[in-house]
Amino acid sequence: MIIDGKAIADSIEQEISSKIAGEVFHRRPGLAVVLIGELAPSHAYVKMKKKGCDRVGINSYIYQFDENISEHDLLSTIQDLNGDEKIDGILVQLPLPDHILPHKIFASIDPGKDIDGFNPVNMGKILLGMSDGFCPCTPLGIKLLFEKLSIDLTGKNVTILGRSNIVGKPLAALLMQNSPGLNATVTLAHSKTKDLQAVCHRADVLVAAIGIPQFITREYIKQGAVVIDVGINRVDDPDAKTGYRLVGDVDFHSVFEKCSLITPVPKGVGPMTIASLLLNTWTSFRRRI
Amino acid sequence: MIIDGKAIADSIEQEISSKIAGEVFHRRPGLAVVLIGELAPSHAYVKMKKKGCDRVGINSYIYQFDENISEHDLLSTIQDLNGDEKIDGILVQLPLPDHILPHKIFASIDPGKDIDGFNPVNMGKILLGMSDGFCPCTPLGIKLLFEKLSIDLTGKNVTILGRSNIVGKPLAALLMQNSPGLNATVTLAHSKTKDLQAVCHRADVLVAAIGIPQFITREYIKQGAVVIDVGINRVDDPDAKTGYRLVGDVDFHSVFEKCSLITPVPKGVGPMTIASLLLNTWTSFRRRI
Repeated sequence: MIIDGKAIADSIEQEISSKIAGEVFHRRPGLAVVLIGELAPSHAYVKMKKKGCDRVGINSYIYQFDENISEHDLLSTIQDLNGDEKIDGILVQLPLPDHILPHKIFASIDPGKDIDGFNPVNMGKILLGMSDGFCPCTPLGIKLLFEKLSIDLTGKNVTILGRSNIVGKPLAALLMQNSPGLNATVTLAHSKTKDLQAVCHRADVLVAAIGIPQFITREYIKQGAVVIDVGINRVDDPDAKTGYRLVGDVDFHSVFEKCSLITPVPKGVGPMTIASLLLNTWTSFRRRI
Repeated sequence: MIIDGKAIADSIEQEISSKIAGEVFHRRPGLAVVLIGELAPSHAYVKMKKKGCDRVGINSYIYQFDENISEHDLLSTIQDLNGDEKIDGILVQLPLPDHILPHKIFASIDPGKDIDGFNPVNMGKILLGMSDGFCPCTPLGIKLLFEKLSIDLTGKNVTILGRSNIVGKPLAALLMQNSPGLNATVTLAHSKTKDLQAVCHRADVLVAAIGIPQFITREYIKQGAVVIDVGINRVDDPDAKTGYRLVGDVDFHSVFEKCSLITPVPKGVGPMTIASLLLNTWTSFRRRI
């Protein structure tokens, strides 16, 4: 069965929208998005995030900068946003230009407005099992998928493939927690893992987040496993209007009949990431109002 | 072969001692230890830590309080220590009385003096792979054991049994990092894990940190595995002067001939934890001086 990430994300957005509309607040939630440079995918992502805000009633404020912006000026912008009362969430679109260190930028965002969850304080809170921080949006989106589909991970072997700071590591930290529905036995696999196929084949739930187009084929999958595909890779496609199409890290057609559930690309994890961003912004607003 | 944790810890302490004695500083490193209540093991641990400081030339300051100390007074003590120039490290001995929330206390310690590494900022830095924080002492001690024994974990299956905030979770976060000698494929197993024996049996390196005396027997161990026993459990022993003796989470005699390397209890991980505390205090001193 194909998991309809889009429909589940829509239902979450609907809930957020009702909450924002359903009570009288003296202002709307506000999300600041900092966008640097001209990379097409970054602009596309920011546009999607802005549209998401519009759908649920969050005010979005786009701060656009030339790719040559100095680290000092970027930090100073973030300081202003930290102090800006109307802003509940601050998002700095990745990737950053080479001359700017992501760690320094993330650490400068007020943890209470860090709705991307990349500040070390919020990362640490996930690992410690504290619920008063923010979880990065893709891991949160995946957790919400399991919740909405009533998939209980307790005791299940969950293999996460890929150890990025924005997906693999925080997702591992999240799913291992002693919390109802989680409690997974998590294995984090990566480029140095030996016998990767065997490691993946043991997984009741396999999460692919390595950024390699269609890497995971049926040989990696245990019969009946749940497959979550985080990859969003552009591959050339002369037949497409844009000249490319999006594929995941999973070879969908190879895997489809062997697994019990699978997220497609697009319309799988992607919309859940956007919904989680809106949810985190709403959560911040409720804490701050 | 039995890993001589005591000897390796001694060599690390020797290095710290030489560094402190080898240069002219205007003061010695300072460690503040906050001890609450009358629990015998807590007093024993603090005594060992103080002795360790004495051995290497770190000034230790013990702040002892009645178990009824209010959270407010404890937080105020920590504020004072945060501002005290002669203090490089602040350690609050666990366990805390029931009326005091550990999370709140750890979050109040200046991250730059948090040599126990329990502040969310430092936890997050481990997960993110940042090296400017502090790693909790037992995980750091285990990492140093591997280093000193030239055990390269790259691509190895490391199973960690137990997901405490002070050992299992930060150790998992540490060993999964993309860093020379680490790069392990980490699985975190716990009370909800299904078929625990099989999960442990796949491990090239098994770390037991569950606090159940002699739980791990030979059936859990792969032939030739490395076994790290973090448990320090008191069991009744009428023949002992104290009426008890210390045993680990591993049934040493059952496992010994099947594994390639094993840490004993005592004199295994324990001394490495103390050495790591001294090392973290030294590191803080060097950053602050």
